Amino acid sequence: MNPFIDLWHPYALAWLPTMTLAEAASEESYSEAVVATLLITAGLAFITSVLLGKLCDRLNLPAVLGDLAAGVVLGGSVLGILVFSADGPAVNGVLLSCLKLTTGAPTETVMSAYRFEMDAFIHESANIGLLTLLFVTGLESNLKELIQVGSQAATVATTGVLLPFALGTITLIAVFHLPIVPAIFAGAALTATSIGITAKVLQEMGQLQSQEGQIILGAAILDDILGIVILALVLSLAETGEIELASLVTLLASAVGFVLLAVLLNRYFCPIFSAVVERFKDPAALLLLSLAFLNALALLAVALGLEALLGAFAAGLVLSGTRRKEELMQLIQPFVYVYTTIFFVTIGASVNLSVLNPFDPANRAGLIVAGCLIAIAILGKVVAGFVVFSNKPVNRWVIGAGMIPRGEVGLVFAGLGASTGILSDSLDAAVIIMVIATTLIAPLLLKTLFPDPNPQEAVSL
Amino acid sequence: MNPFIDLWHPYALAWLPTMTLAEAASEESYSEAVVATLLITAGLAFITSVLLGKLCDRLNLPAVLGDLAAGVVLGGSVLGILVFSADGPAVNGVLLSCLKLTTGAPTETVMSAYRFEMDAFIHESANIGLLTLLFVTGLESNLKELIQVGSQAATVATTGVLLPFALGTITLIAVFHLPIVPAIFAGAALTATSIGITAKVLQEMGQLQSQEGQIILGAAILDDILGIVILALVLSLAETGEIELASLVTLLASAVGFVLLAVLLNRYFCPIFSAVVERFKDPAALLLLSLAFLNALALLAVALGLEALLGAFAAGLVLSGTRRKEELMQLIQPFVYVYTTIFFVTIGASVNLSVLNPFDPANRAGLIVAGCLIAIAILGKVVAGFVVFSNKPVNRWVIGAGMIPRGEVGLVFAGLGASTGILSDSLDAAVIIMVIATTLIAPLLLKTLFPDPNPQEAVSL
Repeated sequence: MNPFIDLWHPYALAWLPTMTLAEAASEESYSEAVVATLLITAGLAFITSVLLGKLCDRLNLPAVLGDLAAGVVLGGSVLGILVFSADGPAVNGVLLSCLKLTTGAPTETVMSAYRFEMDAFIHESANIGLLTLLFVTGLESNLKELIQVGSQAATVATTGVLLPFALGTITLIAVFHLPIVPAIFAGAALTATSIGITAKVLQEMGQLQSQEGQIILGAAILDDILGIVILALVLSLAETGEIELASLVTLLASAVGFVLLAVLLNRYFCPIFSAVVERFKDPAALLLLSLAFLNALALLAVALGLEALLGAFAAGLVLSGTRRKEELMQLIQPFVYVYTTIFFVTIGASVNLSVLNPFDPANRAGLIVAGCLIAIAILGKVVAGFVVFSNKPVNRWVIGAGMIPRGEVGLVFAGLGASTGILSDSLDAAVIIMVIATTLIAPLLLKTLFPDPNPQEAVSL
Repeated sequence: MNPFIDLWHPYALAWLPTMTLAEAASEESYSEAVVATLLITAGLAFITSVLLGKLCDRLNLPAVLGDLAAGVVLGGSVLGILVFSADGPAVNGVLLSCLKLTTGAPTETVMSAYRFEMDAFIHESANIGLLTLLFVTGLESNLKELIQVGSQAATVATTGVLLPFALGTITLIAVFHLPIVPAIFAGAALTATSIGITAKVLQEMGQLQSQEGQIILGAAILDDILGIVILALVLSLAETGEIELASLVTLLASAVGFVLLAVLLNRYFCPIFSAVVERFKDPAALLLLSLAFLNALALLAVALGLEALLGAFAAGLVLSGTRRKEELMQLIQPFVYVYTTIFFVTIGASVNLSVLNPFDPANRAGLIVAGCLIAIAILGKVVAGFVVFSNKPVNRWVIGAGMIPRGEVGLVFAGLGASTGILSDSLDAAVIIMVIATTLIAPLLLKTLFPDPNPQEAVSL
């Protein structure tokens, strides 16, 4: 008999029809297994990512690589604790024994708890992590400056999307003789800049407010919108063999409408919001009301067929004018720490390192394609940095480098491509390798290319 | 065609076998419905609880009542947005239309998204909210003072558990002629003090550090342990008709061992932890390492057959000696704000207000029983406050009042009693009414009984 009681039971049980005591006990043992699973995996993810993040810091690499590396270490390629196989999340033998020992639950209970609840937990963590990260990025941005760099950002975004898309697709067809649909899909995976990784690196370097930082950010947001349009285009092409122009026009119109709405809200809603939260002195009210606003705009974005993340960014941008901005940032940042860590660790864990082994002949095709994709991914964005027009001197290399990381958006294409069977295993591996490589290269390039901030500070003093 | 992409897809899809495009699209529409559901319900919960919390503040009531009231307003009794019926979580018509409009998903997709993911979301929120709340309570406590008041707390706890248990069970059998098992079960629901609500009210009043506060806290923790022992006893009695003495002894032994371990860790592990986190300057590392430690102790508590919450409190207590305590509190507090709100709102939503209507003859039996239970619940704890021995002057009324709220622990008994069929509907309603009443009365009594802090401050100046 197991006397552990999980505190959510009262209402969880209220949903269930009357149970026997044995059923209630098995419910309890299940919920205990769920709690134990989450405690163990999250704890391991936290410790590993902190240690590897410290290592990255020593090596002058961005901390986000520590999270990805932690995922690789905990994942199927090394320790096998967080394994996401094609048959579902698998419980490794050591972890299974550990969970059984802790909870006293039978094997099947532990297995199903792991399988179903880890799934839900990871989905939520990813959503919360990215929504709060984009919200903070919006808070740290300056709407006026974003509008000022608008046309420059648009040039960078358009070039940086079209060039890798065209080059990638043509190369895959002409050089590697791939069919049109997979070539277009892999080409599309080269387009979108990872706003998450870009924002995180710029924030780490304190360059979010610089002109280059604002152009990169603006272009990354436009990339996100263009990425959605391209995904819609590619999926409809794969599904029906033709492109639905009407839905594309609707999508573009709603994107433009959403951006205009954010501008209007920043001007007219932000002062009202500030006045309201002033009346609620405690930090809890500030946090909860801001999150409710974030939720509302994210929901609106979804309703318009856009990404929820875009809504989160817009919410941050709208509230960037509030007087309690600093306090709000401090309240939101802990969520970013915890949930982006879980998200990036999970992404790391889903990477199958074995595809990188050049001694396995089965990998060679993928590695060669990956090399080409990496070259195109970098070239396309660097060129985009050079087409930008500006009266003021602007570091074009920095802009190009800032647009390079593909991160989670590229992985969305890879995941969708693999699960729908559009991308073959080796092409899918090549896309994932491209994502890892661009994510690794971009922060290194940025650290090299950005002028040392110290002399500049000396001038401004 | 719906181009929304939820960003957890890459690895979510990696777990699934190869899908057709139509299946992938339906997966997408499902995940979109999940995101929309969580955004709407969490947003509504946040806004309503902030507004009603403000109202409670005006009326000099504790803010936690605002959360409970928000749940009642959003729940089946009033607006019907968060409904937890016996048939499962039901989507209200307005919310359903709203979700369908937002996501464009078919009715069944929205319904199943709501049913399964709301469940997982609420479980997790409750777990995270209570774990972080108890962790913060531990951080704010002082181990030395807790040990100093140890024997006093033990007297309060033992009296405050045994007296209501005995009085309640005997009254239900002798006056209301109930069978023995339901009477014992309902009597057991009268025992445990809600450490969550007590800690929250003491924190709100800034009385966590006072001698009375420390006695209340110590007794509430012991209550928690005694509550687990009693639940084990009652469940084994209901299941087998007899009491397993061996497992009770094991349970008590592991509880004592756990407390000793916390004392040892506070002395020997805390300085090491401090030294380690000093080397990781950034707040993210401090937060993640502390959470990993919280997880480890919570897991240990579960492994020993105790509550995970006890582990969280012990983790906070161990780390209360670290030099970065203030910073850590600031980093953890946002999780407490968000997740305890969701937890208390959900508890409010699961309350069926109609049982309170005295004009419905079906309710009268429950209301009369509830009145008796409330009287016994208050009397038992007030007497417990008076048996405490002390050399220093101590406010015995305050200690009794602080032990009154039953909160979530009482609801665990109510939920388990209802789902196993041990408690009849009217007895279950009586237990729930007792929980609500004690939760309401305790903070009011505490505000009246605690001497006004201002004159004291004038003396100390």
